[in-house]
Amino acid sequence: MHGLGRKAREASAGMAKAETSDKNRALLAIAEELQAARGALRKANAADLESGRERGLDSALLDRLELTDARIDTMVENLEQVAALPDPVGTIDDMKYVPSGIQIGQMRVPLGVIGIIYESRPNVTIEAASLCLKSGNAVILRGGSESIASNQAIAACVQKGLAKAGLPEAAVQVVETTDRVAVGTLIAMPEYVDVIVPRGGKGLIERISKDARVPVIKHLDGICHVYLDDRADVSKAVNIAINAKTHRYGVCNAMETLLVHQSVADQLLPELATQYREIGVELRGCSEVCRILPDAVAATEEDWVTEYLGPVLSIKVVADMDEAIAHINRYGSHHTDAMVTEDYSRSRRFLREVDSSSVMINASTRFADGFEYGLGAEIGISTDKIHARGPVGLLGLTSQKYVVLGDGHIRK
Amino acid sequence: MHGLGRKAREASAGMAKAETSDKNRALLAIAEELQAARGALRKANAADLESGRERGLDSALLDRLELTDARIDTMVENLEQVAALPDPVGTIDDMKYVPSGIQIGQMRVPLGVIGIIYESRPNVTIEAASLCLKSGNAVILRGGSESIASNQAIAACVQKGLAKAGLPEAAVQVVETTDRVAVGTLIAMPEYVDVIVPRGGKGLIERISKDARVPVIKHLDGICHVYLDDRADVSKAVNIAINAKTHRYGVCNAMETLLVHQSVADQLLPELATQYREIGVELRGCSEVCRILPDAVAATEEDWVTEYLGPVLSIKVVADMDEAIAHINRYGSHHTDAMVTEDYSRSRRFLREVDSSSVMINASTRFADGFEYGLGAEIGISTDKIHARGPVGLLGLTSQKYVVLGDGHIRK
Repeated sequence: MHGLGRKAREASAGMAKAETSDKNRALLAIAEELQAARGALRKANAADLESGRERGLDSALLDRLELTDARIDTMVENLEQVAALPDPVGTIDDMKYVPSGIQIGQMRVPLGVIGIIYESRPNVTIEAASLCLKSGNAVILRGGSESIASNQAIAACVQKGLAKAGLPEAAVQVVETTDRVAVGTLIAMPEYVDVIVPRGGKGLIERISKDARVPVIKHLDGICHVYLDDRADVSKAVNIAINAKTHRYGVCNAMETLLVHQSVADQLLPELATQYREIGVELRGCSEVCRILPDAVAATEEDWVTEYLGPVLSIKVVADMDEAIAHINRYGSHHTDAMVTEDYSRSRRFLREVDSSSVMINASTRFADGFEYGLGAEIGISTDKIHARGPVGLLGLTSQKYVVLGDGHIRK
Repeated sequence: MHGLGRKAREASAGMAKAETSDKNRALLAIAEELQAARGALRKANAADLESGRERGLDSALLDRLELTDARIDTMVENLEQVAALPDPVGTIDDMKYVPSGIQIGQMRVPLGVIGIIYESRPNVTIEAASLCLKSGNAVILRGGSESIASNQAIAACVQKGLAKAGLPEAAVQVVETTDRVAVGTLIAMPEYVDVIVPRGGKGLIERISKDARVPVIKHLDGICHVYLDDRADVSKAVNIAINAKTHRYGVCNAMETLLVHQSVADQLLPELATQYREIGVELRGCSEVCRILPDAVAATEEDWVTEYLGPVLSIKVVADMDEAIAHINRYGSHHTDAMVTEDYSRSRRFLREVDSSSVMINASTRFADGFEYGLGAEIGISTDKIHARGPVGLLGLTSQKYVVLGDGHIRK
């Protein structure tokens, strides 16, 4: 692992000074290699699927593991999209003269070496590699043991593409061992790795955050709320509450708790409950909700801190917006929270006072996504407060250094 | 310590939504309190000085510990300056419509609760508190045990000022125990503290970085370089090389290693050596330097990684700019590095390829400073790569959350 680290560190210097056109050429060359290697990719993936079945992986995991032709197409499109994004590296912001006569600005530069630790889905190999490559970083990828053959087949295509563009092949390396000790080493070598991005279940991310000796860009829970204000437009309120919960269940930006102002609970909840019931969403509520909806299950304290990732919704009636904000900041996961209202002053307060990476007015929490935000792609959604908050795209994989220009200036 | 943490977390919500005028009123009220409490401050400080002498602290430490009238004046000015700075909190950048019809921007928000751990200088209490307060954060300050009485006297003024402006008094808390265990607790309670800023010696910072369970904005060494290119203007080269080393010795942005292009070494080094010798700087050099300057001491590998913080300079002759850049990126501390040259293309490459928080052309490394950069004040200089790099001012104590405005938009 230290050998991989040393090579990545060396490669990162070459990547940092690579020209935009070379990086784009590499991305498109990798796309071509993937196209040309469809047979090899499917074969490697079949081996992973077979050993997965032998090891008794469940069908959801096997589904995520499968590299269908459509998924290979998506990887190719992903590479083309990232090639088309503007290159953030080298842009200089806020260049200005200061009273001493020197000129100061901030130049965007790569972070250096990024370690990505992920589970099952082999297409993450391309999603992560393409963003790291475009942002001028070197990357060490550590996928799940169940997808090792697929990841290596993809990595072979990446290596060929990098070589074609004259970029260092060690800019993208895949850890070839499935040994768990390897992860422990990867996250504890600050001399070679600048930041770790874990992608996977909460257990994995908590373990890594606890043991890492380098900064981690992480995303734990997505306990997202929608608050329906008494000044909400009723049809917007219903549409957003339904969309945020039921558009997709297993995603981090799905609503898990609905908060409803007491003055409109009697009006809104029965209508919402009818729709949720038709779709098959189980409702758990506070005592007031259970009064209005007799078939709702009584929610426990545990429900307010649970990310169901499924067709379950907790609902609470609140006295006013202040109680809604207090509930969100206390029980939420600082991910994405929305309010539905037509009230101008309250909307301003909600935007300012809710301490989440995305705060929304009259929009579904499902919009919290790098593509929807116009980042082009995302490596994850950060619920951290420092560095990057919310969807992390190319900019989140860079930082800014100061550049100073003088004409022989010395400090008096 | 958990009690302090809980109170700080509560206060941080009040600080995050505080209006700019209230924060400024608090800063100016604290300044008035300090003015009014000069007697009490001097008395508390005298007690610290006395017990410091009893414990046998050396004179440099006692000097840093002393709260002279001039230093109280500086604290007052510092508060007034920070009050005059623009408030970053709530500013929204890049507000734009995206194809789905929603509008997206990034709002600058406080980090939350900041823990500051520092040594000896009691004026850091005000420097740190004023920046945290203006940026809408709550702060827990843990000063050195030798300055405990001074810090508590200052804290009393801070509390009164906060109360006068109607801000939560727990927004600034000083740890009252000198127990070392308190530090261990402070850096390991992510539920109450969002980021730690250690200010002090390398040993302190390394220990904290190793044990912290929350992100650390840190600054380890300042091993700064100046590279004199063969296309340098001779008088700029000499002025900058002298200023960067001798303007002040004990500061992190002082030059520790001088790199000289081989073609100009015979010309520049004797002249520089004469000036350094007059000022009393010891010179240690590579074999080529020792050939040109017979009285220079032979440098060892250790010299290239040493932050002297005193009148000692290591010098190396390099073949070209590439060797200079390689030396800086290998042996430096990614703090501040400068090149003196009149060559346009080389200056562009140096700025891009040197991986340091400040990279300079034709300016003294001594300019790497929050005041010189126009940040108004600084809480420290970060040599980290993520979040803030270089001098950290108000912006470094904030991050950005996404705000999304819609008109009932749902995800299709």
